[in-house]
Amino acid sequence: MINYNPREWFTFIFRIHKADTVKKLFPMFCAIAIYSAAIAWLELEVFKLSEKDHIKNITSMHGLLGFVISLLLVFRTNTAYDRWWEGRRQWGALVNNSRNLAMKIQAMLPAGHPAAAFFRTMIPNYAYALKDHLRGEHHPSKLEGMSAEDLEKMGTGIHIPNYIATLILKKANELYRQQVISGEQLITLNTQLEAFADICGACERIKNTPIPFSYSVFLKKFIFFYVMTLPMGYVFGLGYLVIPMVVFIFYVLASLELIAEEIEDPFGKDANDLPTEMISANIRKHVQEIL
Amino acid sequence: MINYNPREWFTFIFRIHKADTVKKLFPMFCAIAIYSAAIAWLELEVFKLSEKDHIKNITSMHGLLGFVISLLLVFRTNTAYDRWWEGRRQWGALVNNSRNLAMKIQAMLPAGHPAAAFFRTMIPNYAYALKDHLRGEHHPSKLEGMSAEDLEKMGTGIHIPNYIATLILKKANELYRQQVISGEQLITLNTQLEAFADICGACERIKNTPIPFSYSVFLKKFIFFYVMTLPMGYVFGLGYLVIPMVVFIFYVLASLELIAEEIEDPFGKDANDLPTEMISANIRKHVQEIL
Amino acid sequence: MINYNPREWFTFIFRIHKADTVKKLFPMFCAIAIYSAAIAWLELEVFKLSEKDHIKNITSMHGLLGFVISLLLVFRTNTAYDRWWEGRRQWGALVNNSRNLAMKIQAMLPAGHPAAAFFRTMIPNYAYALKDHLRGEHHPSKLEGMSAEDLEKMGTGIHIPNYIATLILKKANELYRQQVISGEQLITLNTQLEAFADICGACERIKNTPIPFSYSVFLKKFIFFYVMTLPMGYVFGLGYLVIPMVVFIFYVLASLELIAEEIEDPFGKDANDLPTEMISANIRKHVQEIL
Amino acid sequence: MINYNPREWFTFIFRIHKADTVKKLFPMFCAIAIYSAAIAWLELEVFKLSEKDHIKNITSMHGLLGFVISLLLVFRTNTAYDRWWEGRRQWGALVNNSRNLAMKIQAMLPAGHPAAAFFRTMIPNYAYALKDHLRGEHHPSKLEGMSAEDLEKMGTGIHIPNYIATLILKKANELYRQQVISGEQLITLNTQLEAFADICGACERIKNTPIPFSYSVFLKKFIFFYVMTLPMGYVFGLGYLVIPMVVFIFYVLASLELIAEEIEDPFGKDANDLPTEMISANIRKHVQEIL
Amino acid sequence: MINYNPREWFTFIFRIHKADTVKKLFPMFCAIAIYSAAIAWLELEVFKLSEKDHIKNITSMHGLLGFVISLLLVFRTNTAYDRWWEGRRQWGALVNNSRNLAMKIQAMLPAGHPAAAFFRTMIPNYAYALKDHLRGEHHPSKLEGMSAEDLEKMGTGIHIPNYIATLILKKANELYRQQVISGEQLITLNTQLEAFADICGACERIKNTPIPFSYSVFLKKFIFFYVMTLPMGYVFGLGYLVIPMVVFIFYVLASLELIAEEIEDPFGKDANDLPTEMISANIRKHVQEIL
Repeated sequence: MINYNPREWFTFIFRIHKADTVKKLFPMFCAIAIYSAAIAWLELEVFKLSEKDHIKNITSMHGLLGFVISLLLVFRTNTAYDRWWEGRRQWGALVNNSRNLAMKIQAMLPAGHPAAAFFRTMIPNYAYALKDHLRGEHHPSKLEGMSAEDLEKMGTGIHIPNYIATLILKKANELYRQQVISGEQLITLNTQLEAFADICGACERIKNTPIPFSYSVFLKKFIFFYVMTLPMGYVFGLGYLVIPMVVFIFYVLASLELIAEEIEDPFGKDANDLPTEMISANIRKHVQEIL
Repeated sequence: MINYNPREWFTFIFRIHKADTVKKLFPMFCAIAIYSAAIAWLELEVFKLSEKDHIKNITSMHGLLGFVISLLLVFRTNTAYDRWWEGRRQWGALVNNSRNLAMKIQAMLPAGHPAAAFFRTMIPNYAYALKDHLRGEHHPSKLEGMSAEDLEKMGTGIHIPNYIATLILKKANELYRQQVISGEQLITLNTQLEAFADICGACERIKNTPIPFSYSVFLKKFIFFYVMTLPMGYVFGLGYLVIPMVVFIFYVLASLELIAEEIEDPFGKDANDLPTEMISANIRKHVQEIL
Repeated sequence: MINYNPREWFTFIFRIHKADTVKKLFPMFCAIAIYSAAIAWLELEVFKLSEKDHIKNITSMHGLLGFVISLLLVFRTNTAYDRWWEGRRQWGALVNNSRNLAMKIQAMLPAGHPAAAFFRTMIPNYAYALKDHLRGEHHPSKLEGMSAEDLEKMGTGIHIPNYIATLILKKANELYRQQVISGEQLITLNTQLEAFADICGACERIKNTPIPFSYSVFLKKFIFFYVMTLPMGYVFGLGYLVIPMVVFIFYVLASLELIAEEIEDPFGKDANDLPTEMISANIRKHVQEIL
Repeated sequence: MINYNPREWFTFIFRIHKADTVKKLFPMFCAIAIYSAAIAWLELEVFKLSEKDHIKNITSMHGLLGFVISLLLVFRTNTAYDRWWEGRRQWGALVNNSRNLAMKIQAMLPAGHPAAAFFRTMIPNYAYALKDHLRGEHHPSKLEGMSAEDLEKMGTGIHIPNYIATLILKKANELYRQQVISGEQLITLNTQLEAFADICGACERIKNTPIPFSYSVFLKKFIFFYVMTLPMGYVFGLGYLVIPMVVFIFYVLASLELIAEEIEDPFGKDANDLPTEMISANIRKHVQEIL
Repeated sequence: MINYNPREWFTFIFRIHKADTVKKLFPMFCAIAIYSAAIAWLELEVFKLSEKDHIKNITSMHGLLGFVISLLLVFRTNTAYDRWWEGRRQWGALVNNSRNLAMKIQAMLPAGHPAAAFFRTMIPNYAYALKDHLRGEHHPSKLEGMSAEDLEKMGTGIHIPNYIATLILKKANELYRQQVISGEQLITLNTQLEAFADICGACERIKNTPIPFSYSVFLKKFIFFYVMTLPMGYVFGLGYLVIPMVVFIFYVLASLELIAEEIEDPFGKDANDLPTEMISANIRKHVQEIL
């Protein structure tokens, strides 16, 4: 994620950031400029179509469909943003959950009980494991205090966050069987203990379920034909000025689709993705402060 | 569900996928093209209506109603998408729930207790049973480790997911009565045990409740009359170009309605439906990893 | 509720269903057609207003206010649909709750305990009582296994769903006092036991709280004046064609308001209302399958 | 709250109800009519501006900004309605909560235990106290069965709903210490016992937090300048007809803002406010039926 | 936060409040006025472009993109407002939680138990600590009754709200170990005890996650180019009147973006920020009333 000060308008407007859609779409801008120029040249100079030609009025279609395409792009933006924000909320829940579990363990264990060290390493390990799991990676070096046996098992392609969550659940039930914590205390730990798998499942759901295929196809086809037919009608009113206009309209429509695509899977390493690395580090820091 | 890379614009735009609305609507496109051509021919060549005829100004109605139809189609899209996404969330909840139950059972049971095998087969069985139940099917071969008696009962037309959920609840209460798990542990299992029926009920609700009949009828009538009256007015400005324009506008409006219809019942085998088969297989895989 | 196949476009478009707004609004269509014809006749033939008269440009007001009226009608549609869907969710919750309670009772009670029969009749009774309560009716014949004393009390105008919920809660606490179920088991029953009153309250809230009076009045006034002034300006461009245009625009605007009115109280017997009768029957069927 | 039949269109359209925005805005209508007439007179008869004057085209600005103002007013309407509906949901939750607590107490207490009388009066007292608290009032006469000591304390300006909630919590814990109810029963009462303060807090939040100041100011400025500049451009097309048009547009825009203002604080005695008085009376009635 | 009476229209419209966007944007207004004047002078008097020049029709682009920019600004407004409102809800939850915890402690502790004094100071301390934490400040003087040791530790840069929440959790578990409160009572305290960390995490999430960078950049670029190209086309119709028109359109668009920026981080000291100071004081007042 890029940290930025939303109030610095000027640098935003004139600097082309690496994640900027202007940069990504630049080759398309050129192609569309050439296409528009060709249409204008053909209509104005080759076929010498007059202002009275019917093709001029194709612009009325663009007016009518302008609402639909705008509303659909905002629908697209909304759903993509909702996933991004839900991803953020899930990682926020992981923070809350890690802290609450650490605080409760700290409040329940007798001073100096060895299980504190277990939770002190395992709770942050879960965050690191989940981050890497969502990126399809595995970095055992980030996981602290795992036994050699655990590390070996985790290298066999199993679901690593589940494995760590099971270890945490087992330890809590073991403490209960050893009567270090009472049954009532186990109940108060339950929300935190089951939240790990819930958060992991929610993130997997966001990651694995893009917007339905049909909408994605439809929207791209719609934008394409809308933009491709734009210069045909507007060339009569605008002449060669139709070139920057079509490029600008394409910039607006395609940017919205592009940003939505980038944002709807928020767990990667794109410029707009969530700072899961930093959140994991914060969880480790705060859990170690508490325990 | 179709897995796709949302960033491959060109294949999207030019390939006609089998679930593509272009394919489904093709016969309608032809009919509407013929209808528009007929209207154009009648108005321009038979009746030779001049530009000053009142019918030309019917286009102002299309302008005024353009907002309403766009907003209604986006409302339709939103509600259909919300159901699809809620369906996905329910199946995500089933994943979380199955994992959490398996992990807790694993943490609570003494090593080697025979009940582990029961949960190892029954938790994934629930997912398979629910998937088939939502499709109005029954595939006993997908259910592992069911007794002959259970299989027989399930063949009598009873509600199979309920039957399996009851078996799981009974086993948990039996373990409690046998004091294998304590009362406090039973309480911590409760959320997972009752989630099965909640998820099943929510999926049935989505499946059995399409958008209210009146909206569905109204929207179809509205699209129909809107598109049918389109060529009457625009033919004066556009001539025979009115044919592709009307077809394209119909493509946009009808696609939105068609996709919404397909998506609002997300548990079937349509191209856009949820991958419940794959999710069930994943549940089996992960539960077996854990237990 | 009407069961329908949303993909049968043609029957939808040409059949006038009994709940169809076309049918309900037909007298209004006639009145508005006559009104528009009168306006057109007066302006064109009596006063012989020319195209240059100022009244022609009143159409610019309709253009400006077209957005607002469209957005307001979609706001209206959204809020009405949300109530309908929330009502459906509450009844879905009643299904889940009834099933879960039946399953848990079945798992907890020793085989052959007489309390099973009590829950087997009382859980479905609650659904029937709630359905009738929301319709302001009382059908004792639908309630199975009630004692004569209970039936008599219920005839005195008391809140019947509350009465049945109290019976269920009392029975559960009685089983606990008799140590048939343990304290921990009582806790796991708690969510289901308290859901009855929550669902009932939510349905009563939806039923008793229409959209605020001011919005309802404002929207009706707005539609009325908008449609009444429509023919005044458009008559110059459209001549007597203004009649079908005004009727069609009125059809669209008034239909949205009418459907919203019908749908926002979803517990009656209107064509679009929820199938609470059928859901109650299903609850009885499934609870009897389980217990 | 006004009870009304949403299907009586005609009385709605022609009757001016006391809460009607037409009545409230009437002085403004006159002012705006005079202002528009003055603008029209100045432009048409004093300065005799011709149709070619640049000021005529100021209308294009109104077209462009028409979307923004419509969308903002719908945003305003949505947020105000959401508060109103959330307030209603909170009071619905109070109903559910009061009923559930009464039912549970009834199921748990031995027949004839004196604590029943306590809950029978205190649960409805909470609703009455909350209603008056949200209106900044205090009516001790509405509270039944309070001891003289309690009434005296409540007269000292303390937070009365909190005081009553504390009494209820204390009684429940006292019953637990006296072993009238068991620990497990106390746990099942917990949701209801803590809901009182949650509901009170949510209502206070809605009451004390209007829409951010900046939006409120911005929207009013925007409506004002939008309407004030309207006659300047439209006078050329509409002549003195600009007067009713500007008044009607002002009616629509200002009504939306006015209704939103009235509705966003739903606990007062305005015509559109929630029927908290009636809900409190219903809670008393139903709790007394149960206990 | 500014307390205001939303019904005082006139003071709102004519007074320039310090948080008013008119004040903040004033330098930009001047720059844009000069720019527009320059464009008008160049086009009308230097190049003497006639009404037939193509550049006149660039206005059609502004019409087409008017929907998109309006919808995007409303999307921006919605997301910013949602954060602001979620922040308010979290602080409301802190109020509810503090009250409920105080009431429960009061109901559970024997009269005169010294732990009451601990909760009486620590619960409000949490609110003060959270407020300062969200502003990146630390004011030990606001925290009552902290031991010297605690104050010293809190000065070392640790996460202060977490530290206080841990103290509260420890005290509750200590009371449980000393059998002052029973296991069941500990369970009923659990929701309140774990809410502290959840609320803190949610506020941190809102504070640290502005809208994705790409949207922020895109929207600013879009507004900038939209406004910059406005005078080019409209100058032909409006002459020098284009200057106030462009300034007014810029005012509307930029105000929405500016207010959204201010509001999406609601925990600071800006004019529109939440009254966290006052809420903290209220929590102290009410907790001291109860305990």
